[in-house]
Amino acid sequence: MATQIATERAYNFSAGPAVLPVPVLEQIRDEMLCLPGARASVMELSHRSKEFVAVHEDAKARLSRLLGLGENHELLLLQGGSRLQFSMIPMNLLHEQKPAQYIVTGSWGKNALAEAKKVGAVEVAYDAAESNYNHVPDVGALPIAADASYLHVTSNETIQGVQFHDDLAVEPPLVSDVSSDFLHRPYDIERYGLMYACAQKNAGPAGVTVVVIRKDLLERSDDNLPGYMNYNSHVAADSMWNTPPTFAIYVLGLVAKWLEDTVGGLEKMHELNQAKAKVLYDVVDAFPELYIGHARKEHRSLMNVTFRFSDDAIQSDFLGGTEDAGLTTLKGHRSVGGIRASIYNAMPMEGVQALADYMRDFAAKHS
Amino acid sequence: MATQIATERAYNFSAGPAVLPVPVLEQIRDEMLCLPGARASVMELSHRSKEFVAVHEDAKARLSRLLGLGENHELLLLQGGSRLQFSMIPMNLLHEQKPAQYIVTGSWGKNALAEAKKVGAVEVAYDAAESNYNHVPDVGALPIAADASYLHVTSNETIQGVQFHDDLAVEPPLVSDVSSDFLHRPYDIERYGLMYACAQKNAGPAGVTVVVIRKDLLERSDDNLPGYMNYNSHVAADSMWNTPPTFAIYVLGLVAKWLEDTVGGLEKMHELNQAKAKVLYDVVDAFPELYIGHARKEHRSLMNVTFRFSDDAIQSDFLGGTEDAGLTTLKGHRSVGGIRASIYNAMPMEGVQALADYMRDFAAKHS
Repeated sequence: MATQIATERAYNFSAGPAVLPVPVLEQIRDEMLCLPGARASVMELSHRSKEFVAVHEDAKARLSRLLGLGENHELLLLQGGSRLQFSMIPMNLLHEQKPAQYIVTGSWGKNALAEAKKVGAVEVAYDAAESNYNHVPDVGALPIAADASYLHVTSNETIQGVQFHDDLAVEPPLVSDVSSDFLHRPYDIERYGLMYACAQKNAGPAGVTVVVIRKDLLERSDDNLPGYMNYNSHVAADSMWNTPPTFAIYVLGLVAKWLEDTVGGLEKMHELNQAKAKVLYDVVDAFPELYIGHARKEHRSLMNVTFRFSDDAIQSDFLGGTEDAGLTTLKGHRSVGGIRASIYNAMPMEGVQALADYMRDFAAKHS
Repeated sequence: MATQIATERAYNFSAGPAVLPVPVLEQIRDEMLCLPGARASVMELSHRSKEFVAVHEDAKARLSRLLGLGENHELLLLQGGSRLQFSMIPMNLLHEQKPAQYIVTGSWGKNALAEAKKVGAVEVAYDAAESNYNHVPDVGALPIAADASYLHVTSNETIQGVQFHDDLAVEPPLVSDVSSDFLHRPYDIERYGLMYACAQKNAGPAGVTVVVIRKDLLERSDDNLPGYMNYNSHVAADSMWNTPPTFAIYVLGLVAKWLEDTVGGLEKMHELNQAKAKVLYDVVDAFPELYIGHARKEHRSLMNVTFRFSDDAIQSDFLGGTEDAGLTTLKGHRSVGGIRASIYNAMPMEGVQALADYMRDFAAKHS
């Protein structure tokens, strides 16, 4: 079975859209022409049909269980990606008199901040630019105004490979972009005012965005906001204010089912993710003159392992052999260069081991 | 295998998401685990990968050919559905001193108007409410200000089943919501300032929206618009300002390929759509005391055939037998009741004939 995958499919380290669980892809394939009982493909079903409503409800129920959601939060499934959230969040939550605070630990935090500035008063509570975004701050030590409209963080910076490893405890409502590490570990959801994630990095295909919002924050939105941009439109209509991205929601539900039924929940997923990341970082640390890790050790991402070489020739050499080894999409983001191995939930340990073997072999040849 | 599919699938008259061509579904199924040459599912590919860029370019090239796009327009593939366009259009195109004009011929036009009113000055050039939205106006006879910011129409009202059958010639930039009849006939694209369509009615799955915009209109957008809401963000980044809905774009491209290569283009598609609609309207007209058509004959939609009965008991009787006859999703929209048979591009003549046969048999039993 590993052989067949090696000849057809590669181990795909894309940062997003990214690898999905094979059993999920197989189920989609098998149900493509006819969702059992529906007499049509899931893509062809009216979003108001009982068959699709069941798919939608199942996806939401599974996500709610995985996140530990209770009565205090709403779960929304939207379009527009995190980029649309960068605007929706300040448009809905910003009180003019109480600036929002932003902690910037990488490229996505910078993008979120730029959009918020268009909407109203924001302050930068921390920006790790001087270190070239190789760490996250000790948030407890920052002078964050208790009455800030909210505090925005990016839990995992995909491009730089730095990550907050805990649920932050802060006084203002915590707004966290968890796009690139969504569902990689259990959460203390009560600490979050708003959590959002585009699905295509760790939870499904591109085209659906999960938003979890604390109900009291919904009172802040102005009725005159553009309809799609008002969280209340979507809450009132149970995420069917307009036609939802039905196929993407179906896949999101299948991935959540895989997490619950096959992996065994987020504790298990977290253990596996820690083990996978350790395999790669151990190789990086074993050859420090060859592999130059980007992030400080204690802030290394479990999702995106980033490193570079002392010169471009070695990097070309490294990348030149990966395709033949069945390893794809390892080049770092164009904005920072180097190597980025994204090892999201659906990347199996076998793929990580194959990359680690390749890295060790490469180091042996270059020593 | 073909037999199994035939017994499992029904003829699906859903108004959207709606029927897709079977060969498209079969190709998606066959490529689900591995897009040829890509070593991964299309859903798992980075939107920046050469494999997905080829998918994206192919979809855009095919749509451009079908629409007859030249140098004057940009083609964008976005998220958020037509609902997001209802806000984006006035946010980008409305000059405060020059109100936009709206022609309202059904439910979707009303929704578009409501969002525009939140943004700025709009005027209602025509509203067919008094007739319960059973027709479209003679636009040439309306007193439309030549210097209006734009004139908004809904080419086909899905719920009421009324349709403009021509490309309107008007002085202000024509903005047309073609969501529910997109690609059902050829267009004189030079008459359009902006044309938009969510894909899930006539062109693909829910989750991708096609926007065609005349380049000179792009100069109107304010730099301070929320990034996702500014058409220029998407033009500058070739619809990759954020991660596009990659799978939905792949399917949109396959449907465009089916239109070009299997159907033989939009002229052929239009002929087939006219023939299909005639089959159903002929039955409606043959039993006028049983089937009460909603739209005036000359404004009947080729996409959504709407009719009702003189009492609810007959309607229940009619709907009670459709599932066994292999005909699904015929109930009219909850806001207007009655029957709605949506016969989009992908509905084969065989499905229309099956419904016509059912309607004739039903009429015979009820005479």
